[in-house]
Amino acid sequence: MSVKTVTSLTNATVKAVRALHMRKEREDSGLFLAEGLKIVIEAIDCGHAPKILMYGPDAADHPMLQKAAKACAAAGGEVIEVNREILEKVSRRDNPQAVVGVFRQVYTPLSAIVPQSADCWVALQAVRDPGNLGTIIRTADAAGAGGVILVGDCVDPYSVEGVRATMGSVFAVKIAKATVQEFLAWREEWPGSVVGTLLTATVDHKSADYVKPSLILMGNEQQGLPPELAAACDVNVKIPMRGRADSLNLSVATGIMIYTVTG
Amino acid sequence: MSVKTVTSLTNATVKAVRALHMRKEREDSGLFLAEGLKIVIEAIDCGHAPKILMYGPDAADHPMLQKAAKACAAAGGEVIEVNREILEKVSRRDNPQAVVGVFRQVYTPLSAIVPQSADCWVALQAVRDPGNLGTIIRTADAAGAGGVILVGDCVDPYSVEGVRATMGSVFAVKIAKATVQEFLAWREEWPGSVVGTLLTATVDHKSADYVKPSLILMGNEQQGLPPELAAACDVNVKIPMRGRADSLNLSVATGIMIYTVTG
Repeated sequence: MSVKTVTSLTNATVKAVRALHMRKEREDSGLFLAEGLKIVIEAIDCGHAPKILMYGPDAADHPMLQKAAKACAAAGGEVIEVNREILEKVSRRDNPQAVVGVFRQVYTPLSAIVPQSADCWVALQAVRDPGNLGTIIRTADAAGAGGVILVGDCVDPYSVEGVRATMGSVFAVKIAKATVQEFLAWREEWPGSVVGTLLTATVDHKSADYVKPSLILMGNEQQGLPPELAAACDVNVKIPMRGRADSLNLSVATGIMIYTVTG
Repeated sequence: MSVKTVTSLTNATVKAVRALHMRKEREDSGLFLAEGLKIVIEAIDCGHAPKILMYGPDAADHPMLQKAAKACAAAGGEVIEVNREILEKVSRRDNPQAVVGVFRQVYTPLSAIVPQSADCWVALQAVRDPGNLGTIIRTADAAGAGGVILVGDCVDPYSVEGVRATMGSVFAVKIAKATVQEFLAWREEWPGSVVGTLLTATVDHKSADYVKPSLILMGNEQQGLPPELAAACDVNVKIPMRGRADSLNLSVATGIMIYTVTG
C-alpha cells in the first residue's frame, strides 16, 4: 500500500480537500469531508470507502487506521500522511481530528425509496441550518427511520458543519432531494400517513392515528410548513406550546415527532 | 428621557458590553447580553428591564423601541444609540441585530423552587455545549416546564451563544445551579418522579409511570449520566436506539423526554 507524506499547504490534494468547505466545490466534485477515525470506520462499515484518507502523526499507529487505509487503497483511493498544520487548515479548527476522509456524496433517487423498508421517514422543506439538518439525520438514524428527503431549496447535507452534526449517521440513512412538485407527485403513492407538523394544527401530535410507514413533513426554521404542503398531508398535527416560547428548535421538534410516530 | 449617542469603540459602556462575551466578565458583573428587539421586549414583559439598551440607526424609529427605552430609563438604565460598526463588534457578527440589551443574570435558589408549580422540571449534569443548553431552556419554556437546574460544572447559561439559542426563553423559565451534593440532598424532598435518562436503562421512556411533578435528569454530551446520579433517580429510562447511531444530540433527547413526560 502506498502512502504519500505531504507537508505543503500548496499540495494539489490538500488544496482540493480544503476546497470542500465551499458548496460549489462539493457540487462540482460530488465529494464531501468527514472528520474523525471513528466516523471513517463507520463509513467503511456502511460500504463507503474514502476516496482520500488523510491522517496526522497522532493517528499513524492506530490499529483502526490501518483498516481504514487498506479500505481506501483497495477502492483505488489516496492515502496521505500530513502534519498538524494541514489538518488544522483542512478542518478549520484549532484542535482538528487526526483523521479526515473524503467521500462520494450519495443521493437516493425518490423512485428508489421503498417506503415499507422503515416505519418512519422524514421530509424537510427548505431547511436552512446545517447543524439542524445534521442533527435530524442523526436522530433519524437513531430512531431507525429510513432516511431524510430534502424538499425544495435546502441547505447542503454534505456541508462540513452538517456532516459533523450527523456524528456519522450521514452514512447510515438514505438522503434524497426533490423539488416541491416532485415531492407532491411522489407523495401521492405513499402507502402510510403523510404527517405535517404545524403550529396552527388542531390535532395533538400524540393523539393522531399514524399508519405505517409514516412520512413526517416539517417546514423550515423561519416559516414552518407552507399551506401548499400542509394541504398535501393526510393529517396535520401540532406539538403543544404551553409557555412563552412560540416554537421549538427544528431539530428538537423533528426529534419529538420521529419518536412519537415510531412508538 | 436622556439618550446618549456613542460612535467610539473605546467608549467605556461599549467596552463593558463587548466584554460580556467573556465568562469571567459576566460572572464579575452579574450581567449578560441579549440581542434583538423582540427578545428585549419579551424580557421587559417578563419583568426584566435592561440595564443598558443599545440600538442602531435601523431601529431608532421602531415603536417598540420607544417602549423598551422607556422601560430601561424608568429602571435607571442607560439608553444609547450607536452605529452599525459598534453593533457588529458587540455582537461579533456581520449582520448584527439592531437592538441589544444588557440584563442582570437571575438564578433561582434551589430552596425557592416550588416543584408543584409545574408538571415538569429539567436537571442537567455538566452540560458542555452552550447551544444545547440554550435550546433546552427554549424547549422547557415551550413545554410549560418550570425551569432548568444546572448540576455540577455546567456551561454558562448566560453566554451570548446560549442566550441566542434560547430565543428569549432565558427570561421565561427559572434557572438554578447546584453542586452534585446539593442536588442529591434537595432531590430527597422531591414530591414526584425523578427520572434519569440513560442509554443502559431497560425501561422504555414511553412505558414508565411518571408521577407529577416529574424531574428529568440528563447527563452530559460525552459521558451521559454518572452512576451516582442514575442511582439517585426513582426510575431510569432509555430512548430506544434502533439504527447505527448510538446516541442522540442532548437537546433532542431532552426535548423527547420533556414532551414524553408532559404528555
